[in-house]
Amino acid sequence: MKIVFVGAGRLATNLAPALYKAGHEIIQVYSCTLESANKLAILVGAQPIADIEQIVSKADVYIIALKDSVLEEVIPALCAERKNSVFLHTSGSVPISIFENVAINYGVFYPLQTFSKDRTVDFSNIPIFIEASNDGTIDLARRLAGNISNNVNELSSDNRRYIHLSAVFVNNFVNHCYTIAADILTQQGLSFEHLIPLIDETTSKVHDMTPQAAQTGPAIRYDENVINKHLAMLKDTPLLKQLYENMSCSIHQFAQSTKQN
Amino acid sequence: MKIVFVGAGRLATNLAPALYKAGHEIIQVYSCTLESANKLAILVGAQPIADIEQIVSKADVYIIALKDSVLEEVIPALCAERKNSVFLHTSGSVPISIFENVAINYGVFYPLQTFSKDRTVDFSNIPIFIEASNDGTIDLARRLAGNISNNVNELSSDNRRYIHLSAVFVNNFVNHCYTIAADILTQQGLSFEHLIPLIDETTSKVHDMTPQAAQTGPAIRYDENVINKHLAMLKDTPLLKQLYENMSCSIHQFAQSTKQN
Repeated sequence: MKIVFVGAGRLATNLAPALYKAGHEIIQVYSCTLESANKLAILVGAQPIADIEQIVSKADVYIIALKDSVLEEVIPALCAERKNSVFLHTSGSVPISIFENVAINYGVFYPLQTFSKDRTVDFSNIPIFIEASNDGTIDLARRLAGNISNNVNELSSDNRRYIHLSAVFVNNFVNHCYTIAADILTQQGLSFEHLIPLIDETTSKVHDMTPQAAQTGPAIRYDENVINKHLAMLKDTPLLKQLYENMSCSIHQFAQSTKQN
Repeated sequence: MKIVFVGAGRLATNLAPALYKAGHEIIQVYSCTLESANKLAILVGAQPIADIEQIVSKADVYIIALKDSVLEEVIPALCAERKNSVFLHTSGSVPISIFENVAINYGVFYPLQTFSKDRTVDFSNIPIFIEASNDGTIDLARRLAGNISNNVNELSSDNRRYIHLSAVFVNNFVNHCYTIAADILTQQGLSFEHLIPLIDETTSKVHDMTPQAAQTGPAIRYDENVINKHLAMLKDTPLLKQLYENMSCSIHQFAQSTKQN
């Protein structure tokens, strides 16, 4: 297929090369700065553009990989001149209805992964959640997704936003726990490296058991002795102290409700 | 060495077999219930006991792997009759000073890992933090740790409590994020399995980059559009809503302070 990428951020920088390697032709990469359009375009043999007016109309599909906050503005402008084209956005939290009244053949192509510009991820096991306005478009989205992933699922916008919310917990918040730990250790002159085997085992466990069954630590029984010592250690960082308290309360609450069931 | 295990919980159930396989003799396993003492004792050819009075005095080292809250009571009772023996506790948050005035040769042997009774962990890369009251005891602790791990570090009680606090973040709190995500998905009839590739990549990233550099998501720039949608989805679970808000504020705060540096 002939594909135009609208966006050259972290997701586009991973997705465009994956589709390119799967045999698709990336004809243009749009970004609001020519520099970032160029960085991605060069990887996939595409024309870099920074003016939305220059986007061609001959593509089989337009993949919109921009931050959520600009979609409301960009989508109508992009779709207006190309009523019969196929448009797919890639956002976890924006419903398919954003295309209503501005396009006919549209949908969502949401790969559930955390992307960085300088890391290559293997798409083959990344779940891709698709949704579309009609059968032709869902078929197109399924073929495109199936070319790079073995894990393609049709999913409604309403379900997708829960996938996205849960992803914020297991990625954004988990990674922030790593950041806090790194910060605590750095302040004591200790290395974050010490935590890597623990981090790995924590992840490894939930391959084999439910996270609820894997839970350990003082908060399960709300062991005040340990918890109060930790809270005292966090007294100079009130937000972290509150975070620690909330986490501990929540762990305790989940443990209690599991016990009752 | 001849070892007595005081405790038969998750840590003891992993550590005793590791030391046994490394050639040490586990002579007794104490637990407050004979049933759990027996379960571990049978794995390591030891005598199971449930009466602290029955603990022999001929061991080279007594490894105390009990929950923190009972140490204050058990340690004096255990040490009283065996003034010249070697005692090591395994707690991250209890200082070495708990042995002061009750023993002479004492220390700490803290393996930094999350243990479950029905999972076998490979000790070889688990960091073990040791501390002792004198040269003889630190040598003994170092030999013992070195028999099972390639990552043995001498560490003060004060530093160890920061290691333990950071471990609570990267294990207990991270795992709770997994639990929350699983709960969100279950309520929508969606599978937690979808999140596994994302969970794996989140962990994999911090092998190669700092967690601060790996951070993604709406909280970095405090994207109110996405954040408010998520908070609305959590309105029926006030504690999770508060947790989400605190996490997002903290991510934003860290991102701002990094930018300023």
